[in-house]
Parts: sequence; structure tokens; C-alpha cells
Amino acid sequence: MKITCSQSNLVSSINMVMKAVSNKTTLPILECIFIEVTDQIKMTATDMEIGIETYVEGTIIEGGQVAINAKLFYEMIRKLPSSDVTIEVDENYTVHIKCEKSNLKIPAKSGEDFTPIPNVERSKGISLTQFTLKEIVRQTIFSTVENESTKLMSGELFKIEGRKLQVVSLDGHRISIRNVELKDENELTQVVVPGKTLNEVSKILDGGVEDYVDIYFTDRHILFEFGVTKVVSRLLEGEYYKINQMLTNDYSTKVTINKSELLSCIDRATLFIKESDKKPIILNIKDDSLFIKIDTNIGSMNEDISIKKEGKDLIIGFDPKFIMDALRVIDNDDVDIYFMNEKAPCYLKDAEESYRYVILPVNIRSANV
Amino acid sequence: MKITCSQSNLVSSINMVMKAVSNKTTLPILECIFIEVTDQIKMTATDMEIGIETYVEGTIIEGGQVAINAKLFYEMIRKLPSSDVTIEVDENYTVHIKCEKSNLKIPAKSGEDFTPIPNVERSKGISLTQFTLKEIVRQTIFSTVENESTKLMSGELFKIEGRKLQVVSLDGHRISIRNVELKDENELTQVVVPGKTLNEVSKILDGGVEDYVDIYFTDRHILFEFGVTKVVSRLLEGEYYKINQMLTNDYSTKVTINKSELLSCIDRATLFIKESDKKPIILNIKDDSLFIKIDTNIGSMNEDISIKKEGKDLIIGFDPKFIMDALRVIDNDDVDIYFMNEKAPCYLKDAEESYRYVILPVNIRSANV
Repeated sequence: MKITCSQSNLVSSINMVMKAVSNKTTLPILECIFIEVTDQIKMTATDMEIGIETYVEGTIIEGGQVAINAKLFYEMIRKLPSSDVTIEVDENYTVHIKCEKSNLKIPAKSGEDFTPIPNVERSKGISLTQFTLKEIVRQTIFSTVENESTKLMSGELFKIEGRKLQVVSLDGHRISIRNVELKDENELTQVVVPGKTLNEVSKILDGGVEDYVDIYFTDRHILFEFGVTKVVSRLLEGEYYKINQMLTNDYSTKVTINKSELLSCIDRATLFIKESDKKPIILNIKDDSLFIKIDTNIGSMNEDISIKKEGKDLIIGFDPKFIMDALRVIDNDDVDIYFMNEKAPCYLKDAEESYRYVILPVNIRSANV
Repeated sequence: MKITCSQSNLVSSINMVMKAVSNKTTLPILECIFIEVTDQIKMTATDMEIGIETYVEGTIIEGGQVAINAKLFYEMIRKLPSSDVTIEVDENYTVHIKCEKSNLKIPAKSGEDFTPIPNVERSKGISLTQFTLKEIVRQTIFSTVENESTKLMSGELFKIEGRKLQVVSLDGHRISIRNVELKDENELTQVVVPGKTLNEVSKILDGGVEDYVDIYFTDRHILFEFGVTKVVSRLLEGEYYKINQMLTNDYSTKVTINKSELLSCIDRATLFIKESDKKPIILNIKDDSLFIKIDTNIGSMNEDISIKKEGKDLIIGFDPKFIMDALRVIDNDDVDIYFMNEKAPCYLKDAEESYRYVILPVNIRSANV
């Protein structure tokens, strides 16, 4: 195998496929990037859960294949001058790297034991802009949770129905939902995508509003395809939580409030809460003001924010982190919050329901308000 | 005590004096910022080694004093809206902070037990631009070393003689020296300034080329004065190492080399060295090329760099980190390196000797070259 590529092309391709390389594997082959040169230069890496494949532009002098330790390979290429790099593999699978006056040699492997990433049929799928996919992941990923006994909570539901994609994550205290309009009609599809996969895909995507990602589903896999790059991931098995019973449009109090004001106010209030305390933040909703009051050993704070209110007055407590997580990913200046009573979940949503965040309150009967 | 200041003024002043607040103290008063309001608003903090004092612009409504937990105070002020902040202390030393619609209250202390920072006589001193002081610290601080048994190595020698300031740090394997021209004649002064003090002062300084720092010395203290801010630090006691015997201008080989080329080449070579190995990097100096070769379990590399050479050929080994540390803080494009033999320290210096870096070689007789 012998190829010549620009250093910058190599760096960006290696950096991309490396995202699938396992950090904590005992199988040396899973620490490798597999390079396969036929009429194209293909790079692949996988940790058996997620696999990434891309093609590098370059000149092919001789075909072949090799598996190179990903970290070492990346560091070496990254530290070369920004010039043409020639990579040659000899019969002992020693990799010879030449760039200007630099000659590097590293032992590698044939890659015979490298597991190719599964071939995913492209029959069922949707297309989103990179921007949209990155955004919906950012706006929901925070309410996934790593937990062996509730494996499904570490993933996100992708539910496609007609012209609608609904992305859901939940952690037992809250539900995050984003709804996206699709271009075409689709049959009903529900898959649970590992949170880790969504994080890695988000990191690789440029996030352009004109660049598309094609997403294909089978029973066991999801495929993200963009440019010359493919990311394949296993899906999480099992039936996702039934959330419809928790989604109501009823309310007895509706508050419209400036998002940034509420966010900074709660952020300040958290200074008075030791993390170990788990003390709730109390919202006291009156006619045209929301009063926030906190009093702990550290000190006390009270503040009020002008609101528009419909319905009843209410005093209700929340874990401040849950409110802040939701407010941080809502782009609107004003936000509508709907309450039923002090024990029922509140929800934040916009008129079109492009988002909905459902948050369980904390019982404040016992709390020292 | 009652004052009104802008939130941004408060944040920058607290952030400055906070640098002297101890992270690991058992004395609560040392975790505090002491605020003293007479006809000015003065903030002070100290960990008993270093003390920082500054004045905050603002409106004084009533004089007084208070000691407030620095971290909490900083976080609170930082999270307030960028507006006017009123700070009032009541008879129980509770601090009432008001900013727009936010009312915060934190318990504080009278500060009676706060140790004022020592008054340093301004009879012996020099003046440097903030830029120069920041630069010489950056260019020498890396060869200080924290070590209880060789306390002086954790500091830097400031030696003033005539119109010359010499700043020296050393760690047993290398010496870093920067020489700075002063505006005025000075009598001989030698003090050893703690590295921590220099780091903190560097962080506070804007680093402008037009802004000056006045530096005053007594037998036990150093005072840095700039704008409305004073930093006082204890000096390290004891006589600094005699370095003159290690500073020669003799050489049998002189190499002129492009600094960036050498730095990136050594940087690449270090990829082949496990940190635990302590394997040296071998420089093979021939007529018009410097050959760098490394061969380890990880792989091998060879590379050559064009040089201008005077004197004899030489093969010599170094800890690559020491060469890189020096090259990184030298601003010139080309650098002159002087060698005597494979066992004697080499030195890097410019013609005016604004800098000199002395580095001990590693014995390569036993090493596997």
C-alpha cells in the first residue's frame, strides 16, 4: 500500500473516524484505524457499537490495507508540517511516513481481524440539515442518563410519523421533546438511538444549514450519511417509555416570562444551594410578578420578575438545574410555562410545539420555604 | 458601611485581589476579601505570603469595614446584571447586596482579625513596563521547581546592578536567564521572588507596553505597584545559587538553526518516547545539517535540518522537554546554540545576551542510540 495525501486532509479524516475508537478496550484492533486502498482511500474505525467510515482525497500509488493505532497515527500526522504526506506499508506491515525531510516508521497490523462496519440498507430514511440534527441533539441530550438498569434512558427516541420527526429524551424527572417538520411523508418508525452516538455524530457534523445528513433505519441499526462519511450505530433494544399520558395541554396557570431574566435569576439563586442539599427553588406566582426566594445557611435572596399570567396563583418548587437546562436550549426571548398544581409536572412549550419540556416539581410541603 | 459601584468594576477588582486568597487554609479569615471604606473603597486579600490590595471606583454612602468570603462574593457579584450594585453592611455584619430587582444577603465578619498587608518602604526600586515583566516571567518561570528541600528553586532571582536587571531560574538541570536594560542606575540588589507570586502578578497585569509596574524591594518583601493596585509578597530567604561559574562564552561547536523547524522536529520525536522512559533525543551535528534520530518500541524517526555550523562535529543527547521549553519562549526566528562537548552544558543565547538558556546534556554512552 502506498498513498500520498495532504497533511490537512489526513488530519481531518483521522480526527473524524477516531471518534469511533474505543478508549477502554482490551482488543488492540479496536484501538486502530483501518485503511483500505483500492480505487479510493477508505478509513474506518469501530468500537463495535458505533462505526465511522470516510474517504480521504489523495494519490494512490499502490493498493492494500493496514490497521494503525489511531492515537499514535493521529498525533504523528498532526505534528507533521502542512505539506504532502506519503504513507507506505511494507510486507511486515511497518508503516513508513514521509513528509518533507521527516521519515517516521511505526509498526502496524494487517487488519485481517478488523470487523467491518455493518452494511445498512437504505430503504427507510429521512433527510435533515446538519444544523437541525446538531440542534435537536443539543436541545435534548441533557436529559438522557447513563444507567445500567434503565438502559433506554441513555438513548433518545426518534419517532417518525407522516411529516413529523419527534425526538424525545427523559430521565425520570423530566422529558425533553423536539418536533421537526420533514419534507416527505414517512411510515411510522420508532427507534432508540444511543446518546453516545448522537454526541459523536454532533461533534463530526459541521452544522451547516445547507448541508444535509441522510439518516436510515433498520431494525437494529441507524446510519448517518453526509459527504463522504458514514456513521453506523447499533440501536438500543426494547420498547421506549410511553410518554403520551404525561403530555397534556391542560393547565390552571400560564406564565409568560423573559427567558434570560428567569435564567439569570435562578442561576444566582443556586449560589445559595450546596449541591448536597438538593434544596428546591420556590416560584411564587402572583398576578404580574414571579417571586423567587431562597434562604439557606449560605445566605438568602429574593427577587421578582415581571410576568404575564393567566389563571390561578401558585407556589411551586423545582430542582433549579432542570429549569435551567431547559431554558438554556430554548432560543425564544419569551417562554410560556404551564402549571396545573404544585404536585403536577409543569411544561414549557411554544405555540407550534417545536419544543416541549416537561419537569416534575419538588414537594415543598416539607421543605423550609 | 454602604457603597454603590458598577457590577463590572466590582467583578474586576474582586477577581484581582482574589488571586491572593488561599485555597487551602484552615483560617476562615484568609478565605475573605477585606473591604475598608473611608474616603476610598479599598479591597484587600492575603494568604500571609502574598497580599493584594486595590481600590474600587464607586459612591460612598457610609464608611465602615467587612470581611466577606471571597469565592461566594465573587460568584454573587459576577452573576448579577451589569448594573449598579449597592452593598450595605448592617450591625450584625450581614451584607445586603442590591442590584435591580435582586436582593441578596450573606453573613460576613467584622474583619478585626484580618492581617493588613505589610507596608513596604519605597526607597529601593525599579520600573518596568507591564509587557516586559509579564514576558520575563513567562520566559523563565518554567525552570522553577516546587521542592521543599530546595526551596530557593521555587523562586526566581531578581538581580539589579547598574542599569541591568537579570532574572534567573534554575532546577538543577538547566538555567534560564533574561537580561533587561533599566532606565536608571541602581545599586546592587539581589532578591529571590517566589514563583507563585510572579505567576499571580502576571495574571493580574494587562501587559500593556505603555503601562508601567513599579517594583520596590526591602530585605524581606517585594512590592509591585501598578494603577490603583499593590501586590506585596514575602521574599524567599537564603542565598541564591552561584551561577557565574556555569556561564561561559567558550564553545567548540556553534550551530545556527531555524527555531520553528527544530521545535517541531523535536516535538514529533517525543511521540516515540514514553514519559516513563526518559530517553534522550540525540542531536548529530554535521557540517551543514543537524540529524535527529530516534528509535524506540513505539517506532522510529529520522530527520535532518539545515544549519550553519562553526567548529567541530558533535553527537550529544538531551531531555527533549528542556530544549523545547527554551525554544518556545525565544522570539527570534533563528537561534544560536553553543556546545563544548557531549558532557558539558550547551547554551542558547542571542548576540546581545537578552536571554541565555543553559541545558545539561544526558549521557548517551549508555543510551541505545
